Amino acid sequence: MVYVTRKAHFCASHRLFNPAWSDEKNARVFGKCNNPNSHGHNYDIEVTVAGIPPAETGMVIDLKDLAEIVERELVERVDHKHLNLDVDFLQGIIPTAENVAIAFWKILAPKIPSGKLHSIKLFESVNNLVEYRGE
Amino acid sequence: MVYVTRKAHFCASHRLFNPAWSDEKNARVFGKCNNPNSHGHNYDIEVTVAGIPPAETGMVIDLKDLAEIVERELVERVDHKHLNLDVDFLQGIIPTAENVAIAFWKILAPKIPSGKLHSIKLFESVNNLVEYRGE
Amino acid sequence: MVYVTRKAHFCASHRLFNPAWSDEKNARVFGKCNNPNSHGHNYDIEVTVAGIPPAETGMVIDLKDLAEIVERELVERVDHKHLNLDVDFLQGIIPTAENVAIAFWKILAPKIPSGKLHSIKLFESVNNLVEYRGE
Amino acid sequence: MVYVTRKAHFCASHRLFNPAWSDEKNARVFGKCNNPNSHGHNYDIEVTVAGIPPAETGMVIDLKDLAEIVERELVERVDHKHLNLDVDFLQGIIPTAENVAIAFWKILAPKIPSGKLHSIKLFESVNNLVEYRGE
Amino acid sequence: MVYVTRKAHFCASHRLFNPAWSDEKNARVFGKCNNPNSHGHNYDIEVTVAGIPPAETGMVIDLKDLAEIVERELVERVDHKHLNLDVDFLQGIIPTAENVAIAFWKILAPKIPSGKLHSIKLFESVNNLVEYRGE
Amino acid sequence: MVYVTRKAHFCASHRLFNPAWSDEKNARVFGKCNNPNSHGHNYDIEVTVAGIPPAETGMVIDLKDLAEIVERELVERVDHKHLNLDVDFLQGIIPTAENVAIAFWKILAPKIPSGKLHSIKLFESVNNLVEYRGE
Repeated sequence: MVYVTRKAHFCASHRLFNPAWSDEKNARVFGKCNNPNSHGHNYDIEVTVAGIPPAETGMVIDLKDLAEIVERELVERVDHKHLNLDVDFLQGIIPTAENVAIAFWKILAPKIPSGKLHSIKLFESVNNLVEYRGE
Repeated sequence: MVYVTRKAHFCASHRLFNPAWSDEKNARVFGKCNNPNSHGHNYDIEVTVAGIPPAETGMVIDLKDLAEIVERELVERVDHKHLNLDVDFLQGIIPTAENVAIAFWKILAPKIPSGKLHSIKLFESVNNLVEYRGE
Repeated sequence: MVYVTRKAHFCASHRLFNPAWSDEKNARVFGKCNNPNSHGHNYDIEVTVAGIPPAETGMVIDLKDLAEIVERELVERVDHKHLNLDVDFLQGIIPTAENVAIAFWKILAPKIPSGKLHSIKLFESVNNLVEYRGE
Repeated sequence: MVYVTRKAHFCASHRLFNPAWSDEKNARVFGKCNNPNSHGHNYDIEVTVAGIPPAETGMVIDLKDLAEIVERELVERVDHKHLNLDVDFLQGIIPTAENVAIAFWKILAPKIPSGKLHSIKLFESVNNLVEYRGE
Repeated sequence: MVYVTRKAHFCASHRLFNPAWSDEKNARVFGKCNNPNSHGHNYDIEVTVAGIPPAETGMVIDLKDLAEIVERELVERVDHKHLNLDVDFLQGIIPTAENVAIAFWKILAPKIPSGKLHSIKLFESVNNLVEYRGE
Repeated sequence: MVYVTRKAHFCASHRLFNPAWSDEKNARVFGKCNNPNSHGHNYDIEVTVAGIPPAETGMVIDLKDLAEIVERELVERVDHKHLNLDVDFLQGIIPTAENVAIAFWKILAPKIPSGKLHSIKLFESVNNLVEYRGE
């Protein structure tokens, strides 16, 4: 079993906000991340696929294919977007790094052509990152 | 002469948009950066001060002081903000990295207590950065 | 289950030294790290908390809270200190990266307000790091 | 149990190529990586050893020893080499990152003097990396 | 005057070798970089353009345009290539980082549509880089 | 003219302290950096040499030679040391990053065999760095 990781990048804005709460509670819970006009990040994604490399190719998954899948399924849908307003698959959820990583997993897991999706890491800022493994 | 650099970080959203132009021209010139609902970045700032370190301290400028000035004058005013909508000193300009760096220089240059502001670098994304030296 | 990581940084000096051994044995086993006048590092810490993000916040743990806990419980007690001489909770142990990571775990594990401490990584230099998961 | 990681670096050229296939099939499967005159990378290696640090040293493994083993057993045999043509232990396999990591594991696992080899990570380019854990 | 930098990346192999010298002299002068079967690197390029951002765009140069120029004029011609054997504009020169940077400058300088090429930095390995400013 | 840079690394402890001042003044001016038992850093050095690469080698300076000079003249004398107590050429000066960079310049400038020393950068922590160009 080898774990193969491909990195990708996107830039987006978002706002942490629970519509069921008052403005006061939103401000108290989410702090600066609740700024009404949004703020943004350079997000890094690390997609890890696990599998056994066959002898004839030596590749768990063709990294060019994985790069294209990540680009088409994830990056093109979120890059230079407002995560709350512009992204269909994030409607109705609060776009914390945790929730975005879980949403990415749901989209990507059924698209992996060889091996098996093992982990999605999402780096939101210089000091914050999350990982989801589908468990 | 020694060049002393302090790094800082902030997260913000913005939109590249010239109000004197049609939507079509804005979209053509600014591309994805013109997304109406904004997008965002983790910006890194590098502030460089040049001076001669006096023998009694060996410091061009106390880096704790420089860190506080950068935090108070720049970071607190732009972090977790929308650069077009929330930042007074960016009103009326298009918030490209170039223009933001120049605006930062104007604010910071008169506040440096020892040495002289030499350069402001602004890193907007993993592959893009600008530098302004007040020239 | 999502794994949420917060990074922090501190600068400290230390000396690897076993008081039960002769100077010769200490020098032989610990090499340059045994230098009597100490040496030092910029340490990076990565604290990972595992949990299930509740729907109403989308957060395993509020990263602002986690950042404050790491700052108060760890960074303020070791930053700009000599690990052997200045840090109460490291008395009586040899401050290798392994032992410091275990000591950090003991302090931090009972302070995590939501989710569960999963891992502490300690980066000691550009090529060396350790991880402890409480096992 | 503590996981101790040592990083190392080497520069090498390689070509992805299956001698059992036609040139056309090689070009189709391996794309740019099939360039007949080779291409190359700055590879980073991360070797992780797991163990329990004994009280008298506080070290799972002496990192100076681990560094020397990685240098002697791996780096000296692949640095500034053509992986297909110059490296005895890679003969007869396609030098994908997956296969190189597995080959490194086989060489390194029996040489670890204390603790147990846990993981080998191989970073091939800015966006691609693999990990092998001997499973 | 603002300095705008775009980064790009490519992977290539090369061999340092002066055909006017004996094998012995080549081996002595170029050491490991003279390996006959080549070795390789992940090269990073930083292209800096200097200019005055016009008020209507706020951009010295459109970074999308600069990215495309660097991709078309440089990256596509050297990525996944052997610099000595596959690259027309490097024929007859020894592909040290110095010489590659100068060759890149000659190609890029006349292609910059606004502003003026100011600097090309080429990072060859984790510890080595060169800069050429056309002087 | 090409600028060639070699990076190196060392780990050291130090204390900022002016012996002509009272303990109170030292604590007030140097803050945490005045901790009597010292603190430490992983320092990164970037040494830049400027020159014209001769056609027969394509190298301003042989980077292997530059690496050895930096190792022998600087790194071996400061790595795993206490800068105030263990380093002869730092006696009598306050080991701020500024002063250490100037001291490194004085040692290195006369030892460069080809080209001319252009700059020494010293990175003291994740957010602080200095540069000295001999001016």
